[in-house]
Amino acid sequence: MRDLRLLSKKKEEDIIIVDINGLKIGSNSIVVIAGPCSIESIDQALEIAKAVKSLGATIFRGGAFKPRTSPYSFQGLGVEGLKILSRVRDETGLPVVTEVMDTRDINIVLKYSDILQVGARNMQNFPLLKEIGKTKAPVILKRGFMSTIEEWLLAAEYIALGGNDQIILCERGIRTFERATRNTLDLSCIPIVKHLCRLPVITDPSHATGIRELVKPMTLASIAAGADGVMVEVHNDPDKALSDGFQSLTFSGFKDLMDGIVKISKAIGKGITGCSG
Amino acid sequence: MRDLRLLSKKKEEDIIIVDINGLKIGSNSIVVIAGPCSIESIDQALEIAKAVKSLGATIFRGGAFKPRTSPYSFQGLGVEGLKILSRVRDETGLPVVTEVMDTRDINIVLKYSDILQVGARNMQNFPLLKEIGKTKAPVILKRGFMSTIEEWLLAAEYIALGGNDQIILCERGIRTFERATRNTLDLSCIPIVKHLCRLPVITDPSHATGIRELVKPMTLASIAAGADGVMVEVHNDPDKALSDGFQSLTFSGFKDLMDGIVKISKAIGKGITGCSG
Amino acid sequence: MRDLRLLSKKKEEDIIIVDINGLKIGSNSIVVIAGPCSIESIDQALEIAKAVKSLGATIFRGGAFKPRTSPYSFQGLGVEGLKILSRVRDETGLPVVTEVMDTRDINIVLKYSDILQVGARNMQNFPLLKEIGKTKAPVILKRGFMSTIEEWLLAAEYIALGGNDQIILCERGIRTFERATRNTLDLSCIPIVKHLCRLPVITDPSHATGIRELVKPMTLASIAAGADGVMVEVHNDPDKALSDGFQSLTFSGFKDLMDGIVKISKAIGKGITGCSG
Amino acid sequence: MRDLRLLSKKKEEDIIIVDINGLKIGSNSIVVIAGPCSIESIDQALEIAKAVKSLGATIFRGGAFKPRTSPYSFQGLGVEGLKILSRVRDETGLPVVTEVMDTRDINIVLKYSDILQVGARNMQNFPLLKEIGKTKAPVILKRGFMSTIEEWLLAAEYIALGGNDQIILCERGIRTFERATRNTLDLSCIPIVKHLCRLPVITDPSHATGIRELVKPMTLASIAAGADGVMVEVHNDPDKALSDGFQSLTFSGFKDLMDGIVKISKAIGKGITGCSG
Repeated sequence: MRDLRLLSKKKEEDIIIVDINGLKIGSNSIVVIAGPCSIESIDQALEIAKAVKSLGATIFRGGAFKPRTSPYSFQGLGVEGLKILSRVRDETGLPVVTEVMDTRDINIVLKYSDILQVGARNMQNFPLLKEIGKTKAPVILKRGFMSTIEEWLLAAEYIALGGNDQIILCERGIRTFERATRNTLDLSCIPIVKHLCRLPVITDPSHATGIRELVKPMTLASIAAGADGVMVEVHNDPDKALSDGFQSLTFSGFKDLMDGIVKISKAIGKGITGCSG
Repeated sequence: MRDLRLLSKKKEEDIIIVDINGLKIGSNSIVVIAGPCSIESIDQALEIAKAVKSLGATIFRGGAFKPRTSPYSFQGLGVEGLKILSRVRDETGLPVVTEVMDTRDINIVLKYSDILQVGARNMQNFPLLKEIGKTKAPVILKRGFMSTIEEWLLAAEYIALGGNDQIILCERGIRTFERATRNTLDLSCIPIVKHLCRLPVITDPSHATGIRELVKPMTLASIAAGADGVMVEVHNDPDKALSDGFQSLTFSGFKDLMDGIVKISKAIGKGITGCSG
Repeated sequence: MRDLRLLSKKKEEDIIIVDINGLKIGSNSIVVIAGPCSIESIDQALEIAKAVKSLGATIFRGGAFKPRTSPYSFQGLGVEGLKILSRVRDETGLPVVTEVMDTRDINIVLKYSDILQVGARNMQNFPLLKEIGKTKAPVILKRGFMSTIEEWLLAAEYIALGGNDQIILCERGIRTFERATRNTLDLSCIPIVKHLCRLPVITDPSHATGIRELVKPMTLASIAAGADGVMVEVHNDPDKALSDGFQSLTFSGFKDLMDGIVKISKAIGKGITGCSG
Repeated sequence: MRDLRLLSKKKEEDIIIVDINGLKIGSNSIVVIAGPCSIESIDQALEIAKAVKSLGATIFRGGAFKPRTSPYSFQGLGVEGLKILSRVRDETGLPVVTEVMDTRDINIVLKYSDILQVGARNMQNFPLLKEIGKTKAPVILKRGFMSTIEEWLLAAEYIALGGNDQIILCERGIRTFERATRNTLDLSCIPIVKHLCRLPVITDPSHATGIRELVKPMTLASIAAGADGVMVEVHNDPDKALSDGFQSLTFSGFKDLMDGIVKISKAIGKGITGCSG
């Protein structure tokens, strides 16, 4: 691919492993990232984090700065949310990931979390990519819902060009004419990305489909297609979530998901990240 | 769904099993349909049919009437192709499926084959659907590449309304802005269709992706997502195929695919149709 | 364009004029085709035809065979509708256009009407295109809502290859992610088609937008972009129409539209087909 | 529309006129904004600005911070480009517009230019929208190529909610399956936006189509559909432009465009902004 220089894969074994405090992503095991769409309170965050950790998740996700279509929707707890994330990390030992949307916020987000997330709407926010490239922080780069695979990989190249190659690509659905799902999860991108690029790739079936019942089948399909992991939304009380409750798994739904992940991973010869089993 | 009456699923066990001469599709096993894009000669067809049968395929596919974008492209062998299909069936015992595009051709296609295929471009060819509804023949109804799930299910309802419920739905990719693949295989449709509709659903990763290397990962993903089977293109000499060679598997590629299918199917508790193992 | 042979434009003046009983389409004047979505009765059809004729329309449109997403929706009056069209033609002198969906219906449709219409869903119904190619009848070939410009022109080439070059291309909106309109009217296709191809091109703003209030602005935009005419839906009582009433113009709406058409056409140096003024 | 509060149109006359140093946009006249894609040098900028001014343009456009898919493409002259814009403004008297991509750059962009531009990729860069809302500067808000009309208007509401209602909406094409043009110019959005929202709306046919020859027909179509103006790319030597040369008009192309704009505007009863004629 034209202009994919630093991240281009020349031979099969030429891969980048992302290292999160010793947790390896992109090697021969599946990483499961779980947590609520938005951080709502310390009690909510801690309850969810402890539950997903006990069921097998190894990274906690939760939004503090929320990109919302309407200015009148809940915009996230902001810095207060970051501080909650930091407490969750301290109490559970789970690394935490949260979204950053503004070049001015990178430092404070990094102060309280382990992994930066660039959301779909900011995939081509080039100043943000350039600033993140100057840090050494691991980053999850979501594919824009109207971005081609080529544009996505070149967005990653912006980060790498700054000196930071600790990038996890995340497919989260593309916008199509179909409206039965919020977006269309493009699983074909996984083998293509794996062929072209050295980076690990995961999927986010919760945002892609917007439907709780689809999270498990699309997670299993992602892993069967070759993904290095998934990021899913889990909530202690989905019906009362401040955002995206309808697509969040309950704890028992997440337990069922993990059972499926273990079976499929084993069938294709992979383990689960952070599990010794 | 509005107007999905005959095919609407009211409870989980309420499913239609399609019966092809005793071969059951839609029950708890995976069907594998394989063969060339176009029938080119009796030798080609027989060689491929015998090979895929020996490797585990249970239905043979091959085009006689080919819908081609350009009037100057190879349009298929027509009736001669149908006769070849019929000989393949006689010699191998495999049921055969081939596309019908014209209401006037239904009888002759049925004379020589076991399963009708309605292609993506004819998914809303309502006179064709109505005529097929009057037959009792099993039919594979491909999703239009620009059709919503709702339109697809209502196209099936057209057939069912005529008295024929032996319908296999086939997802073959939808048209999106992404061009790295020919179309975008929409695997989310599988759990949605399974939830709404009584019919079995399979996928066609060959046409969806247009890339040989993607057929295996997308087949495995399809099965993990809950599909009842797949339809793939296999050719004895892909580089010389008269159509779609670049997306056809070689025999050894098909063998590798079958290995993966067996593993994934087992992991989710399903067998392979036609295999006693 | 590859394989656009008979219809390819080599130089600016190399155009095909479609001749409908002496009415010329594709020359330096704008044709206005108007009528109801569906023929419902002789009274309805005649009332609308007389009204639109008196206001400046020169061709009458009305559906007899209707392609409907659901098998439970009104499917058109069929042959009875064709007979009504024929009476409208006799009483008003307006040529009539109606859709044909089945190769078996071409003869009867031609018996009762002047112009065949191939609908968006049948743009790649190749047997239908081939059969129409064998007639000498003028045909309106709608662009599929899922079809590229290249596929559309090659569909026309199918007709031309049979010996019939009396083809009018009709853009009627493409399917995109935007849902504020039924489809997205792709007006950029007009100058592209005019550059590549010898055929006249019109638009159908009624079906494209699905919103009555958008018909006038999109008609004027079509003409400004270089279209040779428009096809619009007009109904004597839109709220009671059996199909597509919400997008049909009233008579007074059609009068207002014609006023706009006259002004814009004049501004770009074109006349109105059939008007001596 | 849900949550369109400050910008919602309640009655026809309820419109916001954007005032650029006395130049009114959104009243009954057409504004023409012209200039190169990127500012390359003071000589280039001045030559183009003087030419387009003499031919009827009333605002000068030119990129200093350029959002480019590849990190290896020309990224714009940055602050140096802003200073050139400022000199162009001083020497020609034309107000200037340029893109801002980073919250940290708003102040410096405003120091050197009159109108901020939010590009398609930043339409949902909410921190940027909020910061711009705090200024009183006029802003051109481009529609994201992946954004619905609803999302676009709510992005404008973000700016308005900060206290700044001097917003000009700009349609610049949406991403669809069609590739004959770079994007698909969605002209139907114009009457819809005019119906729902109090803001003026213009189009950018240069970026939408990516083809020089389409700029004129799509400009005329935009005006016929009700747009308040257009923004087009003009270059003194398109073949040597550092970006987007193939879609830039030459001076003589721009002259021809202005002739067409004058005729169409007159036909629909509008004048040209800044022209006394």
